[in-house]
Amino acid sequence: MQLKLENRRYLIGNQELPTSWYNVVPDLPGGLRPILNPGTGEPLRPGDLAPLFPEGLIEQEAATESYIEIPQAVREVLAVWRPTPLVRARRLERELGTKSRIYYKYEGASPSGSHKTNTAVAQAYYNKREGVRRLATETGAGQWGSALAFAAAQFDLELQVYMVRCSYDQKPYRRALIEAFGAGIVPSPSPRTAVGRRVLEETPDTPGSLGTAISEAVEDAAGREDTRYALGSVLNHVLLHQTVIGQEAQRQFALAEDYPDVIVGCCGGGSNFAGLATPFLPDKLAGRMLRLIGVEPYSCPTLTRGRRAYDFGDSARLTPLIYMHTLGSGFVPPAIHAGGLRYHGMAPIVSALVDQGLVEAVAEHQRDCFAAGVLFARCEGFLPAPESTHAVRRAIVEATREPERPQCILVGLSGHGLLDLGSYQRYFADELEDFAYPQAAVEESLRELPGATSVSPT
Amino acid sequence: MQLKLENRRYLIGNQELPTSWYNVVPDLPGGLRPILNPGTGEPLRPGDLAPLFPEGLIEQEAATESYIEIPQAVREVLAVWRPTPLVRARRLERELGTKSRIYYKYEGASPSGSHKTNTAVAQAYYNKREGVRRLATETGAGQWGSALAFAAAQFDLELQVYMVRCSYDQKPYRRALIEAFGAGIVPSPSPRTAVGRRVLEETPDTPGSLGTAISEAVEDAAGREDTRYALGSVLNHVLLHQTVIGQEAQRQFALAEDYPDVIVGCCGGGSNFAGLATPFLPDKLAGRMLRLIGVEPYSCPTLTRGRRAYDFGDSARLTPLIYMHTLGSGFVPPAIHAGGLRYHGMAPIVSALVDQGLVEAVAEHQRDCFAAGVLFARCEGFLPAPESTHAVRRAIVEATREPERPQCILVGLSGHGLLDLGSYQRYFADELEDFAYPQAAVEESLRELPGATSVSPT
Repeated sequence: MQLKLENRRYLIGNQELPTSWYNVVPDLPGGLRPILNPGTGEPLRPGDLAPLFPEGLIEQEAATESYIEIPQAVREVLAVWRPTPLVRARRLERELGTKSRIYYKYEGASPSGSHKTNTAVAQAYYNKREGVRRLATETGAGQWGSALAFAAAQFDLELQVYMVRCSYDQKPYRRALIEAFGAGIVPSPSPRTAVGRRVLEETPDTPGSLGTAISEAVEDAAGREDTRYALGSVLNHVLLHQTVIGQEAQRQFALAEDYPDVIVGCCGGGSNFAGLATPFLPDKLAGRMLRLIGVEPYSCPTLTRGRRAYDFGDSARLTPLIYMHTLGSGFVPPAIHAGGLRYHGMAPIVSALVDQGLVEAVAEHQRDCFAAGVLFARCEGFLPAPESTHAVRRAIVEATREPERPQCILVGLSGHGLLDLGSYQRYFADELEDFAYPQAAVEESLRELPGATSVSPT
Repeated sequence: MQLKLENRRYLIGNQELPTSWYNVVPDLPGGLRPILNPGTGEPLRPGDLAPLFPEGLIEQEAATESYIEIPQAVREVLAVWRPTPLVRARRLERELGTKSRIYYKYEGASPSGSHKTNTAVAQAYYNKREGVRRLATETGAGQWGSALAFAAAQFDLELQVYMVRCSYDQKPYRRALIEAFGAGIVPSPSPRTAVGRRVLEETPDTPGSLGTAISEAVEDAAGREDTRYALGSVLNHVLLHQTVIGQEAQRQFALAEDYPDVIVGCCGGGSNFAGLATPFLPDKLAGRMLRLIGVEPYSCPTLTRGRRAYDFGDSARLTPLIYMHTLGSGFVPPAIHAGGLRYHGMAPIVSALVDQGLVEAVAEHQRDCFAAGVLFARCEGFLPAPESTHAVRRAIVEATREPERPQCILVGLSGHGLLDLGSYQRYFADELEDFAYPQAAVEESLRELPGATSVSPT
């Protein structure tokens, strides 16, 4: 006679895929400051972005409605792996000796192994719909590049990827996956662009940065009529596309007859965190006790140490000016293995949520995060991406702080670490450094902020 | 107004995990010949296996009942990732221009990325229950090693893995995953065992073989009171544990209101194929039109070119004698990238099914298989393991042979290829060879078959 199993996984089917994205912007108490044209200092007009993005995405960037319907063709591709599992980390709970309930939402189940695939599919769709033939993009750890490569293949688009050089060298398998999906890929800085050639001349040994790679991809797209640019994080429309994560989690918590007290996600550009957390914001604004925690690395502490200011999104200062938390667009973060968290800025939406006190920000060291990742893998089986270990680390801190006071914790497991095993090997060999906060470098890059309003962080 | 989505994924929840394993042995029309003691030529007594296996598994090896209850502790661990998805490969169908319906059962969703995890959990459980403290095993491509490493961590067992050297070198990430789960790992042949030292002395440059690695693990286990051996395929109890795959697929086809005409799986030792296909056998025996196709590499064509004979399971001739299809236990297959298919023998159950005409066997070349894997990845997003590409290749052949005569095809996608991206890179660089059937080497190793009855294949 079999006993009933305790549920580990809370699954919902294709038919329960969200039908709309949730746009948090109208719910932000202070609103967002406009994006500025760096030449004029005036708010950007929608047409200014046309060389870079298709109209469908430009509209979403400025959207004011709370829900935006997901096109059927996008849902059909998302249905290949979505809804993703919500899993109760029962063995991790036992190992920690905590009475807290820990759940993880597993975006590593996607074809490219991270949450990035969600927006990649949407972006490829809108480009295809508007007749674009080719895309150009950057990638840090390679998660965005492989996600967009998958999506480009689904919609028969060409793709050129500029991959931050230190990740390109650290993660050859990630490169190979991008090639398997049929995209072209070069290390950034590259000799393919004027920006890349200039950086290579000045600093031939640079590990590269997301900022530089963005500049290269933007230059590529702006220079060709058939090509548009695609960004994997930061912008409003990208965060919008990620809200399928949190919306699914809400339905799955209903199945589990539970509700989180704490939601923890890692923050690089902010899209993973926002996609997971913002759909819960209306409940919090309505009075529900709910903590939302964004976790970043000590070595690139945009939310905890950055300045609120207008800044460029890239290091070559080709993009419009965005009001956000920033370490300065000239800042090159240490070569930590969580490549996806090596960005000088933060999504305006997440920056605003932190400013309003609705989201807490904390920073963690990489060795603590890898230790948490290994513990998680041994208990739960799934190896977290180095980025995702930041959320796991923080969840463990929260779950063990007061072991007798049970909390319900939702962890965003934004991706798997199977293509980051080289980084884990270096962790096992005790070759990973805990970088101190690079104060001097940050101060120097902040001195070069563009002339727009800037406010010190609290 | 949203349209209803066409289902891609057929999901069932934790509560629908099978409660019993299906034992095909009583349903085999000709039965199985006994395993022999190589010293006496007499059928093995159960006690003879006690130095290698715990009693629970020895009982299952000789079980005569059709269903064996799955212990609750095993189901609790399986529930971390099972039931696995059954997915309709709609975009692959479109790309092929076929009217056939192609479904894949995706075992790559497991923590270690392949079907091997199913038996690993069961084996770790029975060893733990009987007081074993430490396990020793071999691994080819590394899928079995990482599966057992995960399972050992779940039941707090130590594990020593002997990994076939060519895979050890080709797949560093697979090694790292085994280490991440906490197990020890060395390349085989290794200086840790007498067998390994002998092989290293005779052929210092050998790529290794599963046969040798098995010998090393068996020697390790037999030499220590606290240690037992674990085998990832071939034996009846291993195939038994894999039958969760086919049983789940049956429930999922009921959801899809469909039923396969053809089931295709790759065959190395036979457990993936048997786990997928044998639960459907009773329907076939009852008269249902259903083809079961096992796919192996041309370079190690056990079923299509091997001899039916009693042979050793390992190259050092330490194991009992097993009646099966074999290329001779001394045969070292070419270093193809589907390391999990490089085995000289075949599960007695699968051998018997082929002998009885219930299963068809076919062989494929590795470049055709990689091409199929790339096409599958671009269409469906999930990159198949090199082993699994054999099944994909054959499914494509079946689906396109008569495009106007629609069939329902079930493909066993036994694992993902994310830790085999080095092999895909070599495929893209046009560095992969199509090995001819190594006739001379097979004939030589078949001349050294032990003295028991042998019968030529049909």
